[in-house]
Amino acid sequence: MHIGLVGLGKMGGNMRSRLRDKGIEVTGYDPNPDVTDVPSLAALVEALPSPKIVWVMVPSGKITRDTVANLAPLLKDGDLVIDGGNSKWTDDEINSKLLAERGTGYMDCGVSGGVWGKDNGYGLMVGGSKGHVDLAMPIFDALRPEGPREEGFVHAGGVGAGHYSKMVHNGIEYGLMHAYAEGYELLEAKGIIHDVPAVFKAWTRGTVVRSWLLDLMVRALEEDPKLDNIRGYAQDSGEGRWTLEQAIENAVPMPVLAAALFARFSSRQEDSPSIKAVAALRNQFGGHAVAQAGPTSGTGSTNS
Amino acid sequence: MHIGLVGLGKMGGNMRSRLRDKGIEVTGYDPNPDVTDVPSLAALVEALPSPKIVWVMVPSGKITRDTVANLAPLLKDGDLVIDGGNSKWTDDEINSKLLAERGTGYMDCGVSGGVWGKDNGYGLMVGGSKGHVDLAMPIFDALRPEGPREEGFVHAGGVGAGHYSKMVHNGIEYGLMHAYAEGYELLEAKGIIHDVPAVFKAWTRGTVVRSWLLDLMVRALEEDPKLDNIRGYAQDSGEGRWTLEQAIENAVPMPVLAAALFARFSSRQEDSPSIKAVAALRNQFGGHAVAQAGPTSGTGSTNS
Amino acid sequence: MHIGLVGLGKMGGNMRSRLRDKGIEVTGYDPNPDVTDVPSLAALVEALPSPKIVWVMVPSGKITRDTVANLAPLLKDGDLVIDGGNSKWTDDEINSKLLAERGTGYMDCGVSGGVWGKDNGYGLMVGGSKGHVDLAMPIFDALRPEGPREEGFVHAGGVGAGHYSKMVHNGIEYGLMHAYAEGYELLEAKGIIHDVPAVFKAWTRGTVVRSWLLDLMVRALEEDPKLDNIRGYAQDSGEGRWTLEQAIENAVPMPVLAAALFARFSSRQEDSPSIKAVAALRNQFGGHAVAQAGPTSGTGSTNS
Amino acid sequence: MHIGLVGLGKMGGNMRSRLRDKGIEVTGYDPNPDVTDVPSLAALVEALPSPKIVWVMVPSGKITRDTVANLAPLLKDGDLVIDGGNSKWTDDEINSKLLAERGTGYMDCGVSGGVWGKDNGYGLMVGGSKGHVDLAMPIFDALRPEGPREEGFVHAGGVGAGHYSKMVHNGIEYGLMHAYAEGYELLEAKGIIHDVPAVFKAWTRGTVVRSWLLDLMVRALEEDPKLDNIRGYAQDSGEGRWTLEQAIENAVPMPVLAAALFARFSSRQEDSPSIKAVAALRNQFGGHAVAQAGPTSGTGSTNS
Repeated sequence: MHIGLVGLGKMGGNMRSRLRDKGIEVTGYDPNPDVTDVPSLAALVEALPSPKIVWVMVPSGKITRDTVANLAPLLKDGDLVIDGGNSKWTDDEINSKLLAERGTGYMDCGVSGGVWGKDNGYGLMVGGSKGHVDLAMPIFDALRPEGPREEGFVHAGGVGAGHYSKMVHNGIEYGLMHAYAEGYELLEAKGIIHDVPAVFKAWTRGTVVRSWLLDLMVRALEEDPKLDNIRGYAQDSGEGRWTLEQAIENAVPMPVLAAALFARFSSRQEDSPSIKAVAALRNQFGGHAVAQAGPTSGTGSTNS
Repeated sequence: MHIGLVGLGKMGGNMRSRLRDKGIEVTGYDPNPDVTDVPSLAALVEALPSPKIVWVMVPSGKITRDTVANLAPLLKDGDLVIDGGNSKWTDDEINSKLLAERGTGYMDCGVSGGVWGKDNGYGLMVGGSKGHVDLAMPIFDALRPEGPREEGFVHAGGVGAGHYSKMVHNGIEYGLMHAYAEGYELLEAKGIIHDVPAVFKAWTRGTVVRSWLLDLMVRALEEDPKLDNIRGYAQDSGEGRWTLEQAIENAVPMPVLAAALFARFSSRQEDSPSIKAVAALRNQFGGHAVAQAGPTSGTGSTNS
Repeated sequence: MHIGLVGLGKMGGNMRSRLRDKGIEVTGYDPNPDVTDVPSLAALVEALPSPKIVWVMVPSGKITRDTVANLAPLLKDGDLVIDGGNSKWTDDEINSKLLAERGTGYMDCGVSGGVWGKDNGYGLMVGGSKGHVDLAMPIFDALRPEGPREEGFVHAGGVGAGHYSKMVHNGIEYGLMHAYAEGYELLEAKGIIHDVPAVFKAWTRGTVVRSWLLDLMVRALEEDPKLDNIRGYAQDSGEGRWTLEQAIENAVPMPVLAAALFARFSSRQEDSPSIKAVAALRNQFGGHAVAQAGPTSGTGSTNS
Repeated sequence: MHIGLVGLGKMGGNMRSRLRDKGIEVTGYDPNPDVTDVPSLAALVEALPSPKIVWVMVPSGKITRDTVANLAPLLKDGDLVIDGGNSKWTDDEINSKLLAERGTGYMDCGVSGGVWGKDNGYGLMVGGSKGHVDLAMPIFDALRPEGPREEGFVHAGGVGAGHYSKMVHNGIEYGLMHAYAEGYELLEAKGIIHDVPAVFKAWTRGTVVRSWLLDLMVRALEEDPKLDNIRGYAQDSGEGRWTLEQAIENAVPMPVLAAALFARFSSRQEDSPSIKAVAALRNQFGGHAVAQAGPTSGTGSTNS
């Protein structure tokens, strides 16, 4: 099998390596001349046998949509585009319709695993038609982890269902990460634990909380036991927000996700406007006029 | 009626004024010689007619318990101590039992209203026996706002019920304040509102959200329209914590209170250890080794 | 002044009464023949002097958008439509553009106060141009509560700013209501308070938590002290959801709103799928195979 | 090595088996005659060589404290009691002091792994002195999973640190479980996923969310794909509550834990008193008197 791969950044570059290792021929295109195999998107399409399969692995949103739009006129009936990026699931219908105008197929594939996927394999969640899934199965088998197919791959539903599943996967991930983080903070705050990183390490076998994220937490604490070199500042990539929007739309209570997402929002504020307002209200109880009027006794406090 | 008042700080001093204005004779004691009427607790008790009624208005916790313990040997059968501070309701049983050893009565009175209570009157929630309530009613009538008694006073139950009611009152207050604060933050963040303080002011009549706290918010925004002079830092006085502990003990979901309290906790942290842990995990996805190995293409991102 | 009013339901009907009481001439249209003044929208427009002002007071969403669309061809340059419903603020731009095609103006007016507004006046938040605000000011003055204009009315910004302010108002309202509700639940659960409704009533004067919502809570508890006739089931009208969506879009943490909204979602579920999943996981710890194998000793429990 | 084991329920019975399989001699006592090795606690102590080591594995709280109190007079200087149950960490100091009166040592050992620990080994978190840890190490090595000791065992600190670590472990577990649960609910609610259990299964390899809890979720869904046989009702064993109490005491924001715990509280309520209060307030907006007065038009709604 010979496919095209657009986007050779950290994820795309790793995937090209894994695919080639597994015997899939890959022609990669990236605007970065240091990593690209061909000089242009057109050259990439040109290089492929029919039916041409192009895997898109670029940042989600406008860049992915534009890439699909640029591919559309280069492809024909029977060809197939697979978006492996972190696209919002609502983009899939847009991309799918655009390609369908010329008979080109479309699938969305949520990909999990980060930089570790190159060696471990990637968890894959696919949306699209049965025929397209069958066509692309050798790619999925090369990318997914060793072991039974159903433990690292799912055909989740029609177009969009792959990214939807990946979005929820990431929504869950927010909660998981924050659950460990809260436990970490409490253990450090309490001060009766000799060696908090050792406690996390001891959880990696036998316990109920053992997980790959826990393994990463142990790794992080081995590199930096007090997390001294890390700021309490966390971005959010979009999927947590989309999942919460879906919770709202579908009337599903997701307080754990909301808490984890809001904690990230707060981490990026220099100062909290909400708490400024709370503090302002507390000042009002205390009464500016009174407070400025003269010395107050040390034995009293204000009962709000 | 002639009563003793221990603690002449901001609250106690104001209450002395209001009581005197309403015709209650008050002998006040405070360690601050500038404000005290008598040189000692003993002198205060000495000054009172029997049955002696002493209102305690000092900081909650050890200081209140110590004050009651110091009063106990000075009082006798038929006398009465009223704790009007923000004591934890579990202290009331301790205080009550101690005084009961010599036949002295005890009541707890939750007091709300802040510095505004001097003029507006204080909201009062009382725990104790019917007989004690009747005995002290002239004091309550002097302290509470004008209007029907039941709209500013309640005999909530036995000893402890007054402080319990006040504790829940403050737990509610946390949620109310944070609800306004969130709305304030969103209106400021969105940037399509000409004049956010004017919106809050327009809510003070006719709307569903009108309240005394809203009036205070308007006042705060009139003094400082962008809250520039206020840091996003909020203490908590204890009652929010106690209410949440009671929620846990009684299996009552109180997510609004928890959210408001946790936001205050966060406001006092230089950096969030939880978010440091989250950021550390996110770094692990990205793969240190890989990230340091060389330049990466600009078109790819990491799919966690 | 003589205006048209479309929608004579509970809100619109009350507003017609209040406007007429305040000396504004009103021609009302409603499909319900029992309440309408004219037989059709066209007849309503026909009846008005120029510049024609039509206040729309119908359910938000499609019905409001359709009403505006039906009004558009009936109006001309210089006329003005005011949407006083609970429309999503993003609808305002749609409505405004549609009317602008023929030179007709548009304003959005968030209206608060429920059925009480007829007598108390309504809190009003308006979005639109200065000129349109001036034109419609007699209407606003008739609808708003007695007292200073700025305490019941605000020109919040351009088109959309009125509904945006009203949306945030309602988002705050969710949090306020749930804060009182949590306190109510805890007081009832604890069981040491003689008379929980009396505690709420005692909070109505002097306390920090006094508010109009508290007054309504007291009223509700006077009608039904244990809320025996009310199911724990709460709808949400949309504005809480929109506010939370805006929180997400603007990276504003709103945990209090989220908690209040999610509690309503939960209240409408027969059974919680989330908790089914949690219970399923707890069963897995216990081990089905083992559990079914035979009697187990009474002194042990499973340590997860 | 020969030790005593008190409590032969599901956990204790399994642990006896594992210890024996690993070459530790175990004399077990349980009030259940079908499972006990000896007729009494005294007989158990009698059977052990000195220094006598007794592992206590009974329900936490009064039963554990009583068991320790009953063991105290039977043991001597140099003997050692290990509490392997889910005791609250504050009980450890009580137990430790009681035993110290006769020179008997005490350690607390948090044990994780559920019924699976028999075969997989248990994750162990120990609090106590270095000397006691060394003495009991053969037991810990027999109970913990295969692999490096530090990946399934930790000496977390002094007496109490083991149970404290286990408590936080369970607090984390609450959040992890609820994160998966929320994702499950959303995927089911949305209705675009063909086969939700297949999505969970596909997450078990390669993805960021892979974990032992996820494996259990897959197992649960294989047994009951729609969780039809499970009620949305979840108990809490105490450790989630204690962790949240610790969060409050140490001013650590733990919104994820709070959300997960409160969801369990809610699941056990027939009806939510909080939501009854919210619904009552919503009714008040609508105005009973008005609502009963006559037919209302179908085109209006109430603007709160």
